[in-house]
Amino acid sequence: MNAVEIIRAKRLGQVLTTDQIAWLIRSYTDGDVADYQMAAFCMAVLWRDMDARETVDLTLAMARSGSELRVRDAVSPVADKHSTGGVGDKVTLAAAPLLAACGLPVAKMTGRGLGHTGGTVDKLESISGLRMGLDPAEFLAILRQHALALAAQSADLAPADGKLYAVRDVTATVDSVPLIAASIMSKKLAVGPSHLLLDVKVGSGAFMKTLGAGRRLARVMVAIGEDAGVRTQAVLSSMDQPLGYAVGNALELAEALAVLRGEGPADIAALCEHEVVTLLVMAGMARTHPQAAARARRALTSGAALAKLAEVVAAQGGDARQIEDPSRLPRAPIRREVRAERGGYVAAIDAEGVGMVAVQLGAGRLRKGDAIDHAVGLVLKAKVGDRVAKNQPIVEVHARTETDVRAARDALLRCYHWSEAPVAAPPLILGMVARRPRRDMPAHATAEAAHP
Amino acid sequence: MNAVEIIRAKRLGQVLTTDQIAWLIRSYTDGDVADYQMAAFCMAVLWRDMDARETVDLTLAMARSGSELRVRDAVSPVADKHSTGGVGDKVTLAAAPLLAACGLPVAKMTGRGLGHTGGTVDKLESISGLRMGLDPAEFLAILRQHALALAAQSADLAPADGKLYAVRDVTATVDSVPLIAASIMSKKLAVGPSHLLLDVKVGSGAFMKTLGAGRRLARVMVAIGEDAGVRTQAVLSSMDQPLGYAVGNALELAEALAVLRGEGPADIAALCEHEVVTLLVMAGMARTHPQAAARARRALTSGAALAKLAEVVAAQGGDARQIEDPSRLPRAPIRREVRAERGGYVAAIDAEGVGMVAVQLGAGRLRKGDAIDHAVGLVLKAKVGDRVAKNQPIVEVHARTETDVRAARDALLRCYHWSEAPVAAPPLILGMVARRPRRDMPAHATAEAAHP
Repeated sequence: MNAVEIIRAKRLGQVLTTDQIAWLIRSYTDGDVADYQMAAFCMAVLWRDMDARETVDLTLAMARSGSELRVRDAVSPVADKHSTGGVGDKVTLAAAPLLAACGLPVAKMTGRGLGHTGGTVDKLESISGLRMGLDPAEFLAILRQHALALAAQSADLAPADGKLYAVRDVTATVDSVPLIAASIMSKKLAVGPSHLLLDVKVGSGAFMKTLGAGRRLARVMVAIGEDAGVRTQAVLSSMDQPLGYAVGNALELAEALAVLRGEGPADIAALCEHEVVTLLVMAGMARTHPQAAARARRALTSGAALAKLAEVVAAQGGDARQIEDPSRLPRAPIRREVRAERGGYVAAIDAEGVGMVAVQLGAGRLRKGDAIDHAVGLVLKAKVGDRVAKNQPIVEVHARTETDVRAARDALLRCYHWSEAPVAAPPLILGMVARRPRRDMPAHATAEAAHP
Repeated sequence: MNAVEIIRAKRLGQVLTTDQIAWLIRSYTDGDVADYQMAAFCMAVLWRDMDARETVDLTLAMARSGSELRVRDAVSPVADKHSTGGVGDKVTLAAAPLLAACGLPVAKMTGRGLGHTGGTVDKLESISGLRMGLDPAEFLAILRQHALALAAQSADLAPADGKLYAVRDVTATVDSVPLIAASIMSKKLAVGPSHLLLDVKVGSGAFMKTLGAGRRLARVMVAIGEDAGVRTQAVLSSMDQPLGYAVGNALELAEALAVLRGEGPADIAALCEHEVVTLLVMAGMARTHPQAAARARRALTSGAALAKLAEVVAAQGGDARQIEDPSRLPRAPIRREVRAERGGYVAAIDAEGVGMVAVQLGAGRLRKGDAIDHAVGLVLKAKVGDRVAKNQPIVEVHARTETDVRAARDALLRCYHWSEAPVAAPPLILGMVARRPRRDMPAHATAEAAHP
């Protein structure tokens, strides 16, 4: 086999064989296929697409390109939950300890933020001393002991994905459904949970701008997971405005802690409960959704979920007092309110724009390796559908300097769009994707249901 | 500007600006844009194509990426003649000295062979001592003194093309009309003749398999040349079977010398005369085609054309006696005839297959830098339309070993296809492409005429 033949075959619109895909990824990982060949290959995939079988093969080849953690051999069942990324999305921070407190262990390896979307690692690193760089033995030991482990994605898992993503990022070949699906799912499969819930974000602040595109990505990822023996479902949720109110690392962590205290914003709390309930039922920890919901609520009101996070934070070297008392989290020196320049109903909030303001304040990074400030960020005071009077505060800016505040204010005012007439708050949960459970269904059939 | 934006724009099917293309090629030449970015870009060009203006811009950017020889500032008029490559194509070896002998100087920078097609440099290097690696000053001095200079393509001219071709070759992005046209024409424009005749090969043994594809490439190249101030026409000629009888370096040179003595095979002689006549008329050296043809025939019969080649060979350090007496050219130790296994009419000869047999014998190279044997090769004894009796010789193999002969025999028998019924010899010259000379025509109009 050789790379030129494989690239040419895809360029001509041919379906690649399992062996061709496995050879290509193995050779690329070993350095025998060059970055320029993979760049051409990725562009050919954007052009000609990949079918379901090719996408599964690509994902498996990438998942097997390095070590495999196989967490479900150590603890079973064991869940993972992944969001495709959005602005203000701190659901994982609340859902992971809540699941563990309900008896379903969670093995969470996660990434750092890049661009306008934040990363769970960055949010957790707001906690003093917390070690996210666990080696496999530590990760498994903490998972066994506490039913929850939180770590930065290891470079040893699915190294082909890291290499390939670096090339895609600089060759305008990121936004391909099979390449995105393989990138996400290869990392999940290399960790090896028994159950996986994907939160596919859809909307102006997400990678997938339309529900159709999000659904296609969700279907492909669910099929990959199920084919690989991981029970997988996906929720499609809206990213047309930031999720919750807080954007920025410590601010988002504090909001997640509020959810764990039963005091969180309604949208985050609802999405968190939906995801937890879905996974509990998937994993057989509850028979029905109401049963699962009751169990989740008990874990919140009893303080078990919050205690679980504090326990794991302590086990990983973090300051657990910050979990119990969020006022101990890093705080920015300057807080200023941005006030509405007009009255009316908030018609839309540009989530990507808000995310970029947070990055500019120092909460995120434009390039890998950029330093970030965990304290800075934004707290929205008005969301879509809210009625606002002129001069009413709409955003609280947490910044390092007054100059940063001024730049943020101008940009934030541009992110808000107004209506004279009342605007309905948009739905947050847009649908679910699961493979049909019936045995007599075709191999790749998936079922979708609009959320009730 | 940045490479990712430019790649994305092309990926989305947008027309790039002159500035974007110039920036991309300049940055690539300087090393600021990476090979993987150009690989993705080339695949996007295959997908979305380039319009005429973009192709001209790409060609000019590549032509200006290094030194420019501007031969027409030294000698004017000065012609160049380029073939897109085929099996047995030795026309340049005869046409260049014939043009010079007719009073039209020729500045010929040319390439080495790769794959099934031979290279003019390799064929000329059959001559003992001939130096093809001339520096610009030498090249211009020989051109001024002898009205003919023959050199290997200098790496200083259009270096972006060399870099880009190396990437295209290993990323399955060679066969794109705008990229091929820009590659060929950038090297021609960097040399800078006043008049250029392109021989676009069409057929099973050529890069362009169909007349339509060949015509499109020819139109694009003619438009580029004319836009850049070089009077340019193209001949479309058949490469459905090898050209002439000889395939292999010294054997092809000997056949070209036969043409210069007025003894060459009819097809090569006709194509050579057609190209010479076209250039003489284009350059104003003759008013009409019959006038030009008469002039060319005088240069052949007088021995002036052969003497011109001998003169330039001597000026470049070569053994001119080999030009006057081809029996002094390198000869392979073994010559064996391949005989027909059946009688009938030759219906087709797989030119690419014949070319690959010659490569296997050692006449060509599969990788850049491979050593070649100038003596080995093939002499066909039967071409399409010929009637052949069983056991009649159809090819003479010139080889180093009997093992090579046996392998060549089997492969050659597979290259010949037979018919019981008579087969007409196919036309060699399929058409011409020239920009319409009338001033009131749209800028990019080209005219084609079937050859009479």
